[in-house]
Amino acid sequence: MRRLTVLLLGLASAVSAAEPLSTAQVLESAKPSDWRRPDPANTLYLDLPAGRVIIELAPRFAPEHVANIKALAHDKFFDGLPIGRVQDNYVTQWGDLDEIRKNATSTRKLPDETVIAWSQALPIVKLPDTDGYAPETGWLDQFPVGIEQKPSGQVWMTHCYGTVGVGRGDWPDTGSGSELYAVIGQAPRHLDRNIVLVGRVLRGMDLLSSLPRGSGAMGFYSDPEKPKRTLIRGARLASELPESGRTPIEVLRTDTPLFTQYVEARRNRREAWFVRPAGHIDICNLPIPTR
Amino acid sequence: MRRLTVLLLGLASAVSAAEPLSTAQVLESAKPSDWRRPDPANTLYLDLPAGRVIIELAPRFAPEHVANIKALAHDKFFDGLPIGRVQDNYVTQWGDLDEIRKNATSTRKLPDETVIAWSQALPIVKLPDTDGYAPETGWLDQFPVGIEQKPSGQVWMTHCYGTVGVGRGDWPDTGSGSELYAVIGQAPRHLDRNIVLVGRVLRGMDLLSSLPRGSGAMGFYSDPEKPKRTLIRGARLASELPESGRTPIEVLRTDTPLFTQYVEARRNRREAWFVRPAGHIDICNLPIPTR
Repeated sequence: MRRLTVLLLGLASAVSAAEPLSTAQVLESAKPSDWRRPDPANTLYLDLPAGRVIIELAPRFAPEHVANIKALAHDKFFDGLPIGRVQDNYVTQWGDLDEIRKNATSTRKLPDETVIAWSQALPIVKLPDTDGYAPETGWLDQFPVGIEQKPSGQVWMTHCYGTVGVGRGDWPDTGSGSELYAVIGQAPRHLDRNIVLVGRVLRGMDLLSSLPRGSGAMGFYSDPEKPKRTLIRGARLASELPESGRTPIEVLRTDTPLFTQYVEARRNRREAWFVRPAGHIDICNLPIPTR
Repeated sequence: MRRLTVLLLGLASAVSAAEPLSTAQVLESAKPSDWRRPDPANTLYLDLPAGRVIIELAPRFAPEHVANIKALAHDKFFDGLPIGRVQDNYVTQWGDLDEIRKNATSTRKLPDETVIAWSQALPIVKLPDTDGYAPETGWLDQFPVGIEQKPSGQVWMTHCYGTVGVGRGDWPDTGSGSELYAVIGQAPRHLDRNIVLVGRVLRGMDLLSSLPRGSGAMGFYSDPEKPKRTLIRGARLASELPESGRTPIEVLRTDTPLFTQYVEARRNRREAWFVRPAGHIDICNLPIPTR
C-alpha cells in the first residue's frame, strides 16, 4: 500500500517552535483558543438520507440572501425537495429546481450581493501568495476572499471546493436562495463576482460530491433519473434545534499565529514524503480543518 | 430551474471572426483538423462495472513508467484488483494496493521521471496567464505542464482534475505503476514534481469521482468496506483490442489557432449569464474538450 500523502511524524512536542512544522504538527500544537464554534444561528444542517451536511452561512457577505435562506429553512421549505443537479467537476445543486413550491419567500427579489465594499476596517487575514483571479486573497470571517482595493474597492468570497452559492437565472435576477449549490470540483473562480455566495460546507462534502452525476445537460438529472434523485429530509438552522439535535463542531480559526503556521506548513510540506516543497499555496488549496 | 452556467447563444455562424466568441461558438466553428485521435498504443481503458474510463498515457513525460504500465496491462495485471482508496477532494487510487499480486514487473525499480528537461525544441504551447506554482504553464503533447526554464530547466505535468499518477512510498521509491491514482478534486499542485505522472483521463472521470469515499485514513477503504470495493474488470491498451472493442474518441488539439480562441473564451466568458468576465484562466481550469 503506497501512500500518496503525508507521513505523520508525530514529533510535535520534540520540535522547537523555530523550526518549520508539518501540517500534523501544527494541528497537534493547537490550543483550545485556536478553534472556534460556529454560531448556531448561522449553521445550516442539510439532512440527507446518507447523513448531515453542515453549512456555515456568511451574513456579512450576503445579508439579505442569508436572511431569506434562514426564512426558507424556518418554513421547512427545502424538506422533500431534491438534489437535482450533479455536474462532474463543477457543482451539486439542490432545492426547488422544478419550481413546484413557489411562495413569497422563494420568489422574493433580492439585491445584488455578489461583492461587498472594501474597507481598511474589515478584519481580513491576507494570504501573501500571488493569485491570478484577484489582486489579493485572504480570509474574512474565516471565509476565503478575493480583494481588489482599487479600482473597484471590492471584496468577495471565492469559489473554492465546498463554497455554497445561490442559483440564479440571467442577470439581474440574483436568486432567492430557493436553489443552492456547492462546488464539488476544481475551483470555478471565473464565477467569482458573478453570483451570490452565502457560505461554505464545513462537513459532509462527501455526501454531495459522491452522488451520481446527472446525465442531462449541465448535470441536471434527466426525466428517467428524477425518481431516483436524493431528497432532502430537512434543512434546519442549528439554533432552531434542541441541543440534542445539534452536531458539535469546531473550526480552526484563521486569525491566529497558529493559522499562519498552518498556511506555511501547507505552502512548504515538511513531511518526509515530499521531496520538492511547492513554495506557494493557492487560496483554494487551503481547506480549513474542523473537528 | 435556474441554470448556473452558460447560455448557448447558437449564433456562431452569424458572428464575425473578429469578435470574441463564447466557448460553444468556438467549438461549433472547429474544423475536423482541430481534433485529434489519441494513439491507441497510448490509450488505456480501465473497464469498471459501471463503464469505461479512457486514459491517455504520456510516454514523453515518463517513458519507463508508461512502458511498465503497458506491460502490466498486457499481462492483465490489473484485472480483478480493486479501487482501494477514494479520498474526498483529492484522489481515487486503484491497483495492487493490498500487494497481493507482486511480480517482476510490478516491483521493478524505475528511474525518477517526475520532470523532463526543458529545451527550446519542445513543442510547448504556452498559456500566458500567471501561475503561482510554476514560472510558466502550457501544454505539451496536449498535457498541461509547468515550466521552469531557469534555474532548474525543468518541465513537468501539472496535477489537474483527471491527471493520472503513480502511487509511491517514500523517496526514492518511485513506484512501478502497479498502483495508479487520478485527481478528483481541487488541483493538488503541491504534488507537482514530487511524484511521477503518466497521463490523464479523457473520459469517464465521473466513474472515479462519484465513488463512495473510503472511511479509513487518507480515504483508504476500511476492512469492513473492502468486500464492497469496486473491482477492475480489465485494463487494456486500445491497441491490443480489436477495432470492435475500441471506443471512438477525439480530443481538441491544443496547438491550433482555434485552441487559442477556446482559451480566450474560457478566460473571458462571453455568455449572457456572465456579468464580470474573469480576465484570467488557470491551467487547471481548462478542461480539454473531447467528443
